[in-house]
Amino acid sequence: MSLLENLKWRHAVKAYDATKRVSEEQIDKIIEAARLAPTSSGLQPFKLLVVRDQAIKDKLAEGALNPECMRDCSHVLIFAAWDTYTQERIDTVYDFTTDQRGLPRGRFESYTTKLKEIYLNQPDEVNFAHAARQTYIALGLALAQAAELKVDSTPAEGFSNAVVDQVLDLQQYGLKSVSLMYVGYADAENDWIAPMKKVRVPKEEFILEF
Amino acid sequence: MSLLENLKWRHAVKAYDATKRVSEEQIDKIIEAARLAPTSSGLQPFKLLVVRDQAIKDKLAEGALNPECMRDCSHVLIFAAWDTYTQERIDTVYDFTTDQRGLPRGRFESYTTKLKEIYLNQPDEVNFAHAARQTYIALGLALAQAAELKVDSTPAEGFSNAVVDQVLDLQQYGLKSVSLMYVGYADAENDWIAPMKKVRVPKEEFILEF
Repeated sequence: MSLLENLKWRHAVKAYDATKRVSEEQIDKIIEAARLAPTSSGLQPFKLLVVRDQAIKDKLAEGALNPECMRDCSHVLIFAAWDTYTQERIDTVYDFTTDQRGLPRGRFESYTTKLKEIYLNQPDEVNFAHAARQTYIALGLALAQAAELKVDSTPAEGFSNAVVDQVLDLQQYGLKSVSLMYVGYADAENDWIAPMKKVRVPKEEFILEF
Repeated sequence: MSLLENLKWRHAVKAYDATKRVSEEQIDKIIEAARLAPTSSGLQPFKLLVVRDQAIKDKLAEGALNPECMRDCSHVLIFAAWDTYTQERIDTVYDFTTDQRGLPRGRFESYTTKLKEIYLNQPDEVNFAHAARQTYIALGLALAQAAELKVDSTPAEGFSNAVVDQVLDLQQYGLKSVSLMYVGYADAENDWIAPMKKVRVPKEEFILEF
């Protein structure tokens, strides 16, 4: 099926069947779509947290808008962005990139110097906001990948960042949670939104032409 | 080809062939992928600006990191988010949604009341930041759609928001530019990044498991 067909197929599932698990092979493909997502300057300023443990999911449900999704879904994938950009983080990415490409380290130095001039002179919260935006590209691609596999999912911002950051101790990694994605198989009886028509603003109102 | 194959195929093109144009049928599919993107509470708080006019592209090139991409690509697709959330904007979306679903208006009132309590009590810049994040989901899906069509593209934040907002007079629509996507066909001779290996952080470093 094409991407457009997959996007029409998917919806934000509201109830999961707690007895069904998504295979690790399928989870790997969803992770891979997120990993391949483009990001600003190629910095990939985030990690993807893969939560399988039921006791942890139960803890993360506290403060979630749909706690039963958190508890009943198969895997919770949490996008957590760098709390800021640092010289070391930028250098690590670009050193790895040049090594992988068989180029001398410093090959992109004029560019990384510019990046550092911007990021190292901005408050952490401005840098975090920029990193957080990048995670949504990966979220979109991960949702598309789940749909291609006919695995159900739900993108969500409705959870407690404080609870997630604390339960997973994200501060030690220099990360802060941004959004998440429930992955699993819908509980057809309780997924009340499933029979409803997918609604999007019509194309004529969605675009402006110049 | 699968989504993963398409994501491996694509790269952020650095030079476009100014003589080649992408068909409107293909542009429509890219628009459609962006239009189908999920957004927080289904509000779709942005528009997609489709720029074909060469004189306008030339003006937008001022302040762009890669002005030649702006000038030489076939179409520039600009993601512009709502400058804030308002009661009227929320009601318009939900009235349309209930109408489309054959439900009485107000069917989701307890939910929209909560949304309004949040958004109408936040500063405009906080609301804009939230709306801006949503555009990246659509950007990711639009890039994936271009790749499926084997159309080249470049996601970019490297442009002057002030120039774009002013040239396209976005204020009158209550919009502010966030990111853009160049669409076209690469100039193989000058697209210096094309022969280089695509580099991403290895999976083991990309994920944390719980």
